[in-house]
Amino acid sequence: MTSIATQPLHTEDIEVRGHIIDSLILPKILDTITQTGGSFDIKDISIGHHRQDPSFARVSVQATSKSRLQNILAKVSDHGAVPVIDSDCQTQTADIPGTFPEGFYSTTNQQTEVRCKGRWLTVEHQEMDCGIVLDKSTGRARCVPMTAVAIGDPIVIGHAGVRVFPQERGQSGSGFEFMNSAVSTEKPKGLAIREVAERLFEGRVLGRQNLIVGGPAIVHTGSSDYLCELVKRGYVHRLFAGNALATHDIEKSMFGTSLGVNLEDGQIIESGHEHHLRAINRIRRAGGIHKAVESKVLTSGIMYECVRQNVDFLLAGSIRDDGPLPDVITDALAAQRLMRQKVQNVDFCLMIATTLHSIAVGNLLPAWVHVVCVDINPSTVVKLSDRGSFQTVGLVTDVAPFLSQLLVELDKLEAKS
Amino acid sequence: MTSIATQPLHTEDIEVRGHIIDSLILPKILDTITQTGGSFDIKDISIGHHRQDPSFARVSVQATSKSRLQNILAKVSDHGAVPVIDSDCQTQTADIPGTFPEGFYSTTNQQTEVRCKGRWLTVEHQEMDCGIVLDKSTGRARCVPMTAVAIGDPIVIGHAGVRVFPQERGQSGSGFEFMNSAVSTEKPKGLAIREVAERLFEGRVLGRQNLIVGGPAIVHTGSSDYLCELVKRGYVHRLFAGNALATHDIEKSMFGTSLGVNLEDGQIIESGHEHHLRAINRIRRAGGIHKAVESKVLTSGIMYECVRQNVDFLLAGSIRDDGPLPDVITDALAAQRLMRQKVQNVDFCLMIATTLHSIAVGNLLPAWVHVVCVDINPSTVVKLSDRGSFQTVGLVTDVAPFLSQLLVELDKLEAKS
Amino acid sequence: MTSIATQPLHTEDIEVRGHIIDSLILPKILDTITQTGGSFDIKDISIGHHRQDPSFARVSVQATSKSRLQNILAKVSDHGAVPVIDSDCQTQTADIPGTFPEGFYSTTNQQTEVRCKGRWLTVEHQEMDCGIVLDKSTGRARCVPMTAVAIGDPIVIGHAGVRVFPQERGQSGSGFEFMNSAVSTEKPKGLAIREVAERLFEGRVLGRQNLIVGGPAIVHTGSSDYLCELVKRGYVHRLFAGNALATHDIEKSMFGTSLGVNLEDGQIIESGHEHHLRAINRIRRAGGIHKAVESKVLTSGIMYECVRQNVDFLLAGSIRDDGPLPDVITDALAAQRLMRQKVQNVDFCLMIATTLHSIAVGNLLPAWVHVVCVDINPSTVVKLSDRGSFQTVGLVTDVAPFLSQLLVELDKLEAKS
Amino acid sequence: MTSIATQPLHTEDIEVRGHIIDSLILPKILDTITQTGGSFDIKDISIGHHRQDPSFARVSVQATSKSRLQNILAKVSDHGAVPVIDSDCQTQTADIPGTFPEGFYSTTNQQTEVRCKGRWLTVEHQEMDCGIVLDKSTGRARCVPMTAVAIGDPIVIGHAGVRVFPQERGQSGSGFEFMNSAVSTEKPKGLAIREVAERLFEGRVLGRQNLIVGGPAIVHTGSSDYLCELVKRGYVHRLFAGNALATHDIEKSMFGTSLGVNLEDGQIIESGHEHHLRAINRIRRAGGIHKAVESKVLTSGIMYECVRQNVDFLLAGSIRDDGPLPDVITDALAAQRLMRQKVQNVDFCLMIATTLHSIAVGNLLPAWVHVVCVDINPSTVVKLSDRGSFQTVGLVTDVAPFLSQLLVELDKLEAKS
Repeated sequence: MTSIATQPLHTEDIEVRGHIIDSLILPKILDTITQTGGSFDIKDISIGHHRQDPSFARVSVQATSKSRLQNILAKVSDHGAVPVIDSDCQTQTADIPGTFPEGFYSTTNQQTEVRCKGRWLTVEHQEMDCGIVLDKSTGRARCVPMTAVAIGDPIVIGHAGVRVFPQERGQSGSGFEFMNSAVSTEKPKGLAIREVAERLFEGRVLGRQNLIVGGPAIVHTGSSDYLCELVKRGYVHRLFAGNALATHDIEKSMFGTSLGVNLEDGQIIESGHEHHLRAINRIRRAGGIHKAVESKVLTSGIMYECVRQNVDFLLAGSIRDDGPLPDVITDALAAQRLMRQKVQNVDFCLMIATTLHSIAVGNLLPAWVHVVCVDINPSTVVKLSDRGSFQTVGLVTDVAPFLSQLLVELDKLEAKS
Repeated sequence: MTSIATQPLHTEDIEVRGHIIDSLILPKILDTITQTGGSFDIKDISIGHHRQDPSFARVSVQATSKSRLQNILAKVSDHGAVPVIDSDCQTQTADIPGTFPEGFYSTTNQQTEVRCKGRWLTVEHQEMDCGIVLDKSTGRARCVPMTAVAIGDPIVIGHAGVRVFPQERGQSGSGFEFMNSAVSTEKPKGLAIREVAERLFEGRVLGRQNLIVGGPAIVHTGSSDYLCELVKRGYVHRLFAGNALATHDIEKSMFGTSLGVNLEDGQIIESGHEHHLRAINRIRRAGGIHKAVESKVLTSGIMYECVRQNVDFLLAGSIRDDGPLPDVITDALAAQRLMRQKVQNVDFCLMIATTLHSIAVGNLLPAWVHVVCVDINPSTVVKLSDRGSFQTVGLVTDVAPFLSQLLVELDKLEAKS
Repeated sequence: MTSIATQPLHTEDIEVRGHIIDSLILPKILDTITQTGGSFDIKDISIGHHRQDPSFARVSVQATSKSRLQNILAKVSDHGAVPVIDSDCQTQTADIPGTFPEGFYSTTNQQTEVRCKGRWLTVEHQEMDCGIVLDKSTGRARCVPMTAVAIGDPIVIGHAGVRVFPQERGQSGSGFEFMNSAVSTEKPKGLAIREVAERLFEGRVLGRQNLIVGGPAIVHTGSSDYLCELVKRGYVHRLFAGNALATHDIEKSMFGTSLGVNLEDGQIIESGHEHHLRAINRIRRAGGIHKAVESKVLTSGIMYECVRQNVDFLLAGSIRDDGPLPDVITDALAAQRLMRQKVQNVDFCLMIATTLHSIAVGNLLPAWVHVVCVDINPSTVVKLSDRGSFQTVGLVTDVAPFLSQLLVELDKLEAKS
Repeated sequence: MTSIATQPLHTEDIEVRGHIIDSLILPKILDTITQTGGSFDIKDISIGHHRQDPSFARVSVQATSKSRLQNILAKVSDHGAVPVIDSDCQTQTADIPGTFPEGFYSTTNQQTEVRCKGRWLTVEHQEMDCGIVLDKSTGRARCVPMTAVAIGDPIVIGHAGVRVFPQERGQSGSGFEFMNSAVSTEKPKGLAIREVAERLFEGRVLGRQNLIVGGPAIVHTGSSDYLCELVKRGYVHRLFAGNALATHDIEKSMFGTSLGVNLEDGQIIESGHEHHLRAINRIRRAGGIHKAVESKVLTSGIMYECVRQNVDFLLAGSIRDDGPLPDVITDALAAQRLMRQKVQNVDFCLMIATTLHSIAVGNLLPAWVHVVCVDINPSTVVKLSDRGSFQTVGLVTDVAPFLSQLLVELDKLEAKS
């Protein structure tokens, strides 16, 4: 017992607000404190009587060393716990281009504020796995990816003066009632599809931006006409995809096949495997997708409709691409930069049958953008949520019937309005 | 060379007919011969000029011992190769009930004939993994499962006098053009669904028997109304399922849930996990499904419609069943016996979202009954074909949209007729 | 506001104890109250300072009708919330054999007590999806499956006088530190395998019962020698399996193949598909597995070692069985009855590569028996936990290397002791 | 009948050699002819008596128009059928940089020859989905990807004068006896692992190049020490991976975690998700992996061992990369160009737990390079073979035990030698 007596406890009080019991925020904070070697004393707790009522807790955190206490405070801050006595955040000047100083604050995709001259500033361009540049003169803070750091950028260091507002489960306005369901192939999906339709419809009506992220299985499964229809009706404002979706869409338009499979009857066409290459070659000869539409080399399909409807499409390259099409951005950093710009005002994102592009986009989106990820393979959805994209709602279903049913639900909404 | 000279070769000529190159029959036979330690000499070969034209080959098989030669002849006979010089098949009398004599001929699910007094007899009740009982007095042969063997049954021994007619790929009248496709989630399924609709429609028009084998995911995914519709319209003549499908269907009818999940909105109902048990209990109290329909305890759903439409349903038990419902046949052998009877005049079998029942039924069906197996999990379909049910066409897709689309296709066929 | 005033609130106070925040018990209770149409007032809350310290909450529940209040109380009781003012539980006499009275209390797999003459009695043979028979004269209560109900049994009705002690996450002595991990193929498994080894070792040392539930993939993947080794070394006290595991094990012993695949070199043996049938036939001729070992018809393999080591094995039948072996219990209810008996003193259960048997056994085990489920297919583990077997720890890995590594860890433990 | 008489048949004789029945070459050719609307007449056929003996067939192809006949001849040429009367191949000069002329010959990954001035030239740098540049002056032909085409390049047009030698199944020297197995989780893998070990060992002994293509799951599953060991012992000559494998390897070296999961005990570290970002940042600050090893910033792990052993590693970027590490080639075309160079003398390729990189590398390899693809997810292997990488042997198993067992087998081979 003497040994404990010789260790004077370092103490700091923290506060946490919101649906702290319901959204498991308080349990996580208490867990973190004890797991990181500290102890706690709940000084005050007030729990809302209704689901909507916020709760409040004031917790005294103790640790045997100052550094351990700082470590604990840093960790619980990711769950929205802030010290009762605030201090301004600290910055350090970037010394090497494209790198952060060693102790940089690493962002989450949750709403974040930094304290500067006693005032809390909302961090702009919120994105996970970035740093924060704080311009004290203008009083503006923004997320910055590592590669974009310039010498002299004032980068936020440590957790002091940074607070996070974790997205709460089932928060009012989330719109997705089926959101709390686990990934399962054995759940009814009718309601989920209806809610996706409502989101897309709302986006069109209110002039918000709907982003579709799609993989080539949309074409392989014979579902491209459904996506064309969504584009034509004005439900798609941005389309992110890779070389494969565009190539097989164009292959289908030119040859009626997708990777050599006839989309009318599912037969494999002998030598059809060449079709996608011939399709790419023709677009390259035409000078790109827009020029191919102009010169009538390309006369139907998803890419054609995007050109006609002025849908802003972005094709990002990968090392497995054939060709690629001249519109493909082959440099991953350049593609990320462009995607980052184009997601800024996106309100709803529908990801269809692509793991690579879904994860890439999921990394860029803040936690409050609603994302629905549709894939017949449960592992894609699991991977997305494992990576911190907690707001992602997964639908394990087949692409063709999903899109077909989505159009039926949109028909109903259009008929009503 | 001397050593070879001392080994006189035992030789026998075999013949094989049909689409022997196209259906890979001849390659398999030649492979088998060399792998089993023999050699061959192609004495005559005639290859059809068109896909439809049969081919013919006469092959001389050589081996260094008589027993090895017999072994080779036995193995190639499964692929339809028969000795040029025929002999009658041999039988041995069963000596222990429920067992075969040691050297019994083990059946395939292909059409088989046995030679008796110089005449080839078609084996009745063809089923794989059985033996053959040959009644020489009546000139009738039939497959018999091991458990059904009675003392004194004349059981066919060895391969001599047995010939097999392997089902050929793409044979005229197969009806399934998409049949040669491998299992893939990335293929268009529209045509396949259309062909399933045609089969079901044809079955109804021509008075043939359509068998549905279904799992509880039909209810969990909110698809039971579609199956009800198929029953009501007369497309289902037999239904094989387990306790789970019937229980959750009745749970849905009584409580609106399936395993406690509300099928309207996908919400998990607190305490809803009890619903299935209460549903079973009520049916047990009513004295069974038919009585529950009579007494209006059960007023809707798949089982209700089956009772109303006189669809012959069979519920087979398993060790994971709760309850079970009083209609469930809990003894596996009794269930197999009944299933065996009820598949005798089935022409088309549609398996939906059940591995256990699909494999059980697949084991009982002869190779010429067309089977379509629908599951969102590719491994179910792979398992079916791994077990020798080569005639099974797999559709990796989601149950609800599959059934929904199937009804759309049936509507079209009904409108046309 | 007047409308609310006209609805006098029915109120009852409940209490809940334990790790009510950490184990998410309190959030679940509050959720349930508001979702079921009630409201609440937290009268008293005391939260433990350390993970190990229990917490306490007293909550006043309000509802607009007495029946709604009863409904809420019933639902929260599954999470361990008990009314402050207790009443004895009520029973109703069973009137139809094999059925419960309509309002029967449906059990969970959690530790449960019923109040009888003011005293709380622990329910024996705890098992989910059962009823409770309460013998007031002897003061004993036990779970009873529906089919075992006899006329005159006093069956507990409603939730009053029933309390549940939910198993808490990470409770001291759980032994499984990796227990809180979600199902993932991308996690390190070394520690998990070490902990399984420790459990098995502890079971052997302390004379506890280890139960193995296994599927035929143990044989197909060439892993049966590892299981034989576990049996020989005394780590397996009970083995539950189906016809397939035993058949392919015996096929391997007799022919060196499993479903016709040579286990030495992975080659498919022509005609090897018959081997399993010939293996079954020989055991049937011998009069069963024990007699086959005696008469030296069976001289190696898992079943052989079980006979030699007096391991109590139980083979439960299914409708997809070939044969089956004479030792197989073909009636599902009979098999369940026997399994129920044999799990009574099981302390640890290892499920390997079988969905059907794992779910069947999972249904029978109380929540405090530790279960580890190993399968290369994540969906098996997901299915187990979806069905309420929350205590199940899933390991998504390949059978052969899992068992091989398990033996390495056991070697280490044996060397240490 | 008159209508047929009015269609004079265009006819050309083709020849095909090799294991034309055994390897299904002849069936495919006959199928192609009839499916493409032609008919055939087998003029001569000679079938080898042993598996090793080549066969020969001479087939007369008929079609109703000259263009249809040309189309058929083009298609069957991919299966190795060549016209009896040969002609030189034709070329057309590339007119737009980075594109082929419209009718370009599209390559397979099979060994190919083009006929130039009566002589057959082997095409160099064989790769699928490319064109062929034929330099008539030097008599050299080589595959060229679309993007590398320069104005003036003489590009081969059409199928005339091009012949393909399809890789034959089970060809002598293939080394992989388990090659003909389908993808299955339920097969024994011991032999397969032994054969992979033999390949790696042989590569080291004979000074051939072993290429490893790896994904981050190698680190996540705690298997990186095994790969380090392979590198240290000289079994890895080239390593292709992405940013993720290198990043998590370095994260593990610096922090003991992989994506924030502690690799010792599988616990998720609070805030550990930042570790990978801090690891990347440190390497960027150090100026790259090689410099980080020099300056002792990086002192262990896969990348460290690669630097120490002078293993040529290539990190290709993707749009989902964080950071990335400065060594990552972010442009997909630049990465493909480098990979193309580095696979030129690779003899054996082992792909572990990566879909993207496996497909990318699979696209570049000629059919005769042996490839083994290890993944716990069957769909990765299926995707590889769906894309024409028929030579790929898939092993559905868990990474950690696979690598662990591989080292055991290498130990044995080292002990023997």
